[in-house]
Amino acid sequence: MTAHVTIALDAMGGDSAPDVVIEGVQLAHVRLPDVRYLLFGDEQRIAPLLERFPAIKPFVEIRHTESVVGANDKPGQVLRTGRQSSMWLSVKSVHDGDAHGVVSAGNTGALMAVSKFVLRMAPGIDRPALAAFYPTERGESVMLDLGANVVCDANNLVEFAIMGEVFARIVLGVEEPSVGLLNVGSEELKGNDNVRGAAATLKNGHLSLKFHGFVEGNDITKGTVDVVVADGFSGNIALKAAEGTAQLYRRFLREAFSSSWIARLGYLLARPALNKVKMRTDPRRYNGAMLLGLNGITVKSHGGTDAEGFANAIGVAVDLVKQGFNDRIKEELLALRSQAAAS
Amino acid sequence: MTAHVTIALDAMGGDSAPDVVIEGVQLAHVRLPDVRYLLFGDEQRIAPLLERFPAIKPFVEIRHTESVVGANDKPGQVLRTGRQSSMWLSVKSVHDGDAHGVVSAGNTGALMAVSKFVLRMAPGIDRPALAAFYPTERGESVMLDLGANVVCDANNLVEFAIMGEVFARIVLGVEEPSVGLLNVGSEELKGNDNVRGAAATLKNGHLSLKFHGFVEGNDITKGTVDVVVADGFSGNIALKAAEGTAQLYRRFLREAFSSSWIARLGYLLARPALNKVKMRTDPRRYNGAMLLGLNGITVKSHGGTDAEGFANAIGVAVDLVKQGFNDRIKEELLALRSQAAAS
Repeated sequence: MTAHVTIALDAMGGDSAPDVVIEGVQLAHVRLPDVRYLLFGDEQRIAPLLERFPAIKPFVEIRHTESVVGANDKPGQVLRTGRQSSMWLSVKSVHDGDAHGVVSAGNTGALMAVSKFVLRMAPGIDRPALAAFYPTERGESVMLDLGANVVCDANNLVEFAIMGEVFARIVLGVEEPSVGLLNVGSEELKGNDNVRGAAATLKNGHLSLKFHGFVEGNDITKGTVDVVVADGFSGNIALKAAEGTAQLYRRFLREAFSSSWIARLGYLLARPALNKVKMRTDPRRYNGAMLLGLNGITVKSHGGTDAEGFANAIGVAVDLVKQGFNDRIKEELLALRSQAAAS
Repeated sequence: MTAHVTIALDAMGGDSAPDVVIEGVQLAHVRLPDVRYLLFGDEQRIAPLLERFPAIKPFVEIRHTESVVGANDKPGQVLRTGRQSSMWLSVKSVHDGDAHGVVSAGNTGALMAVSKFVLRMAPGIDRPALAAFYPTERGESVMLDLGANVVCDANNLVEFAIMGEVFARIVLGVEEPSVGLLNVGSEELKGNDNVRGAAATLKNGHLSLKFHGFVEGNDITKGTVDVVVADGFSGNIALKAAEGTAQLYRRFLREAFSSSWIARLGYLLARPALNKVKMRTDPRRYNGAMLLGLNGITVKSHGGTDAEGFANAIGVAVDLVKQGFNDRIKEELLALRSQAAAS
């Protein structure tokens, strides 16, 4: 491995693969000119696409693969029969030390299962968590778990808090990120045993993180905390409920602005300002959910994203590699254990 | 009890009580001129306010109460010491047959506890559920439970589905409402034991309701189904995540439209169209969450709503009374049991 960062790409994952993947690499290359790529996929399809972007050719190596994980393949089935797929081999290249991290826009469940199987859990972490960042009234925040674990206990939530806090420091650059536990109310007695148990551990001071306490669903976009910690069931539902509401607003506004010629004129005048809103809430800007807690960096891109979104997912993976995310998580956990042992 | 509908009001509940309550009655009276009201609260404060609205005086009776449930009072404490409060006595008037339903903008936890204690569960229902309707891309839908039960089992979810379906027929006027279970994916194998267990029961055909299957967080505002069923933990988080996102959009848009004089001009031109969006998503229009499953009708108004919002909450209570909501729930449950017994 050279001193350069190398990112493995599942070139066949996503709705418009491999085109969007190659175009994404091209965009990412402009921003991160020293990153190298291993492209796993059908060479017959990838090579001609690369011809269109001669500038990236020296930075890209194609690794031909025979099979592809389908959007509806069950994770268990992929574990049994998917070892020659572009997804599996791209993840495996991280395990083998050929790449520092992997990005895939393929089937989420399969990517989580394959990553867990191939990369294994990082020492001291019980379960992986899917994390992403998103826009708030105050800036940007991180939420996890977004669906890697449908059932979680208090201890899992505490581990998610530690991982989320390090993630916020690295990806958002927040110095001392505040952490909140997603609940149905902010009072201490609210919620189920899991959130109350996790809150008790997070509050007792062994941890070097800034625990805010409980937060509610509307605190997510308010930006009350930098890191929102949830079980994968309610975290996934909350994120998608927020996405759905954003879609509803975009649709209602589109309908309003096209409802009369005078409204259209108003739109034209306000367009530069409205474009800023669009940019602040652009799902492509927030593309790239991280699977945290493994011995290796796996980033999941939305299956339906475009080249811009895919390039952003690559950017997240490169950030985590450059900042040594996994080593920092390990240090935090060691410090936590020694603090707990000393007390 | 006369043939008129009588609604009991906790005149001291909410951030701006009793003013907003009286003004809400005045607005509701214009729309529903034959409804009568029992106002529970401090007569010294209510009587002078009523002087400002002579038109409603013949329809209103004040029942003086001494104490008030505070916004931060614990439900257990209210059950022990709140029996002379405006909230308790207004709920009790429904139990005593003096009123057909009650509306309160007070402390949600206390209102649920008092309603459950005083009105008791309807026969055949294990747990009450908090339900509300909200705007979608297709129109309006209902979601429950929004937080009455932090922990639910599969059987509770099935009961919520039955209650939500009847609620959608009555309040939204949908003839054959479709029902979906909130989950992290739409495939059959997704989710935890509770949602899978509930889906199995809802699918087996004993029930006369149109079961769609699982829905995800973004289906809530898409309007994929007329009734979204969830446990109170994720339901509450989903609703508040959606509310928070709506707030984020409103704030970003406000900032955009005031960012330059030309954007302001654009806003002025598009204002009539934008006002329609505002109306379609106005939280006041969707004020009034119902506590379903009790021997009596309890409607919870947002604590911070205005007279318009409070009048809407009254409207929901009157609808449920006029349509005999509780009797229809009982019939559905009876039919369900006899179908199950016959099969």
